[in-house]
Amino acid sequence: MPDHTLVVIGGDAAGMSAASRVRRTQSDRPIIVFEKGRHTSYAACGMPYYIAGEISTSGKLIARTPEEFREKHAIDARTGHEVTAINTGAKTVTVHNLATGETFDQPYGDLLIATGASPIRPPIDGINTPGVFSLSSLQSGIDVWNWLDGRKPRNAVVVGGGYIGLEMAEAFLRRGLRTTLIDMASQVMTTMDADMAGLIPPFMREAGVEVRLEEKLVGFTSNDDGEIESVITDKGPIAADVVVMGLGVKPNARLAEQAGIALGAGGAIHVNQRMETSAPNVWAAGDCAESLHRISGRQVAIALGTIANKHGVVAGTNISGGNAMFPGVLGTAITKFNELEIARTGLSEREARELGMDVNTAMIKSRTRSGYYPGSDRITVKLTADADTGRLLGGQIVGMPGSGKRIDTVATAIMANLTAHDLAFADLSYAPPFSPVWDPVQTAARQLLK
Amino acid sequence: MPDHTLVVIGGDAAGMSAASRVRRTQSDRPIIVFEKGRHTSYAACGMPYYIAGEISTSGKLIARTPEEFREKHAIDARTGHEVTAINTGAKTVTVHNLATGETFDQPYGDLLIATGASPIRPPIDGINTPGVFSLSSLQSGIDVWNWLDGRKPRNAVVVGGGYIGLEMAEAFLRRGLRTTLIDMASQVMTTMDADMAGLIPPFMREAGVEVRLEEKLVGFTSNDDGEIESVITDKGPIAADVVVMGLGVKPNARLAEQAGIALGAGGAIHVNQRMETSAPNVWAAGDCAESLHRISGRQVAIALGTIANKHGVVAGTNISGGNAMFPGVLGTAITKFNELEIARTGLSEREARELGMDVNTAMIKSRTRSGYYPGSDRITVKLTADADTGRLLGGQIVGMPGSGKRIDTVATAIMANLTAHDLAFADLSYAPPFSPVWDPVQTAARQLLK
Repeated sequence: MPDHTLVVIGGDAAGMSAASRVRRTQSDRPIIVFEKGRHTSYAACGMPYYIAGEISTSGKLIARTPEEFREKHAIDARTGHEVTAINTGAKTVTVHNLATGETFDQPYGDLLIATGASPIRPPIDGINTPGVFSLSSLQSGIDVWNWLDGRKPRNAVVVGGGYIGLEMAEAFLRRGLRTTLIDMASQVMTTMDADMAGLIPPFMREAGVEVRLEEKLVGFTSNDDGEIESVITDKGPIAADVVVMGLGVKPNARLAEQAGIALGAGGAIHVNQRMETSAPNVWAAGDCAESLHRISGRQVAIALGTIANKHGVVAGTNISGGNAMFPGVLGTAITKFNELEIARTGLSEREARELGMDVNTAMIKSRTRSGYYPGSDRITVKLTADADTGRLLGGQIVGMPGSGKRIDTVATAIMANLTAHDLAFADLSYAPPFSPVWDPVQTAARQLLK
Repeated sequence: MPDHTLVVIGGDAAGMSAASRVRRTQSDRPIIVFEKGRHTSYAACGMPYYIAGEISTSGKLIARTPEEFREKHAIDARTGHEVTAINTGAKTVTVHNLATGETFDQPYGDLLIATGASPIRPPIDGINTPGVFSLSSLQSGIDVWNWLDGRKPRNAVVVGGGYIGLEMAEAFLRRGLRTTLIDMASQVMTTMDADMAGLIPPFMREAGVEVRLEEKLVGFTSNDDGEIESVITDKGPIAADVVVMGLGVKPNARLAEQAGIALGAGGAIHVNQRMETSAPNVWAAGDCAESLHRISGRQVAIALGTIANKHGVVAGTNISGGNAMFPGVLGTAITKFNELEIARTGLSEREARELGMDVNTAMIKSRTRSGYYPGSDRITVKLTADADTGRLLGGQIVGMPGSGKRIDTVATAIMANLTAHDLAFADLSYAPPFSPVWDPVQTAARQLLK
């Protein structure tokens, strides 16, 4: 009788969601999770706020420990176990127990690859200098915390103006560091259009971050102790006692690739909407796997906890004999820098035009609450729609508290193929503490109609 | 040549939106607005917050004055002018100038009735006692303010636990009054299901409001000055130096009715989706007019500024020769009591069952932000869906800051005929300061799938 064990590689959002899902349906099935790090099921997205000192202990970022999985869910979650090879013919994985040094083969009935993604670290001299960090595992966040706590650095440099870059700039500022953010692009947040992204640096500078755009990282220098001393850019040196690299991530797909499993968009593991890979009984989910983009119809690689969780539920459903389809993504994302909320969904104007679409756009300024209500503040909304049909394709929001989550209304409208007219006349909620009488997303939709 | 004048009866949201819309398209058309009160285009929804002292002057609630309409938009807005009759045969209205006592007939090419709604004042002895207020015109709000300012009352009673009731209870509390709210129903917020509405009174009581349910207003007593002294209920007297009646509103449709124009749901003026009444060239918009309910397919009368504005835009578009359809309402509404946010959309479970629908419901508790993020607080979401198809029919939310506006995601999903499954796997935004990894509305949708 063939082995019925579900083996999961990777013990974070996608892997543990899938494992839990399978357990609910198949109470007796053996489930083993191999996690090479020390933690399972942790909130990677929370690390900047932990480093900022807003979350008291790193333990609060752990949703469930390996012990909880073992004891409450009968899931054999083994940390410190690195899978070094997949044999799709023999249906086994080779596992290296990092604590004991032992290596063994584990048969599987189904295999789920949920190996996540790793920060991009460009091959620049000095990238491995102590004090130059990337955020990946929970341990990496703890390492930054320990560095700040132990070294009491004064000058922080953040390389890259994406989500992690903005969040780490906020974190360093909160820790009282003189903070510089550099990006080689001419804007921060390159998943947004330049006109919307342009609203962000003035706010960051006002808060005390030195934002330097069109400035390229060249190298690092270290002090006599071999620790980071400065970041060198094409414009010169910047003093730095701590550096965080926020240049995005790449899918951890090498293990799959070496096993002959097909890769796809952005080097992620190619999957269909059932989360099946090219190999029989091998599934992939989370940051290491592709997703279908609902608007472009293309495969994309987007590393986000929301997507990883949904991948995991879909994979787990199918692994346990169900039939679920992952409906795809819109590239919805949200972050903040201090009080400034930043969100996007669907295609940016630039992305739509690059896909050859004929689009209309509207960018409007409105208020988060009725103008006369205390706390009413500014919000800017940009919408992109198909020029012929008026179908909504994308939305971007930058504004003060209460702004960002409005992106969900736009995301829902896009997912449902609504037009700008539909959104403009949607029955959205209004009361003075919550909105102007036309919600800002509707004001943008009305502008599109003109 | 027939008179081409657009005459508008009522100078608030619906009337002025329509007039402004017509002006944009037809720059030379004569437009006259007759408003019997003293103000145009004011934010009625802001009155409780003005009374609470959160908005410094009543003038801040006025979006545009009659002078602005005259000077900037060439709209002849005449306050203190009451229309007393409509003659649909002769195409005239009879107008009473309240300042001069003069009465005259004004011909119209098109007539828009935007007479709003009036608070329900039950025919109970003492209802007209000084100190017993309803909120309708801006002047009524100013009257309450002046009463609080002049009389320094200590005991407030709010009759009715709907939107106005909750908002006025908050306002009185902020002004330092001992505040009692009574409602003859067994719950507050009767547009919500009892299970969700039941979350509200404990919060109000904690804040210091005495909430008394299943208690019926019987009468009022006055002091030697003839001013309000107590509210009498079927349980006994409650000391009161100021009373606000929050028993809902009824459409101001008598003028239309007397002119032989057909009425419809809830006594509102019957209109089609173009906002046409039963009489040629007579339109109606705003609180006095019906709306189509998108889910039940029935005509309803809902008095809300958002709807009034949309009615006005649709009527104005059609009056000026365009072709717009009002797509209908979902009954979306939002309010708050102190920090507790309360929102609903679509059909409640009770409404759906009353319509004979077979429904499933889910009611879940979640958090407004990731559990470990500062300020994360409680939110309860209830969703109702068609039992056969899973199509979403309604949603209700009660929770702490950040909860309420999530109703817009649900409203958009309902309007687009999405199912619980669609919403559960929608690509909504997530970051720790904004949401758990599954947004609470998705957690509710997932619960519906079980």
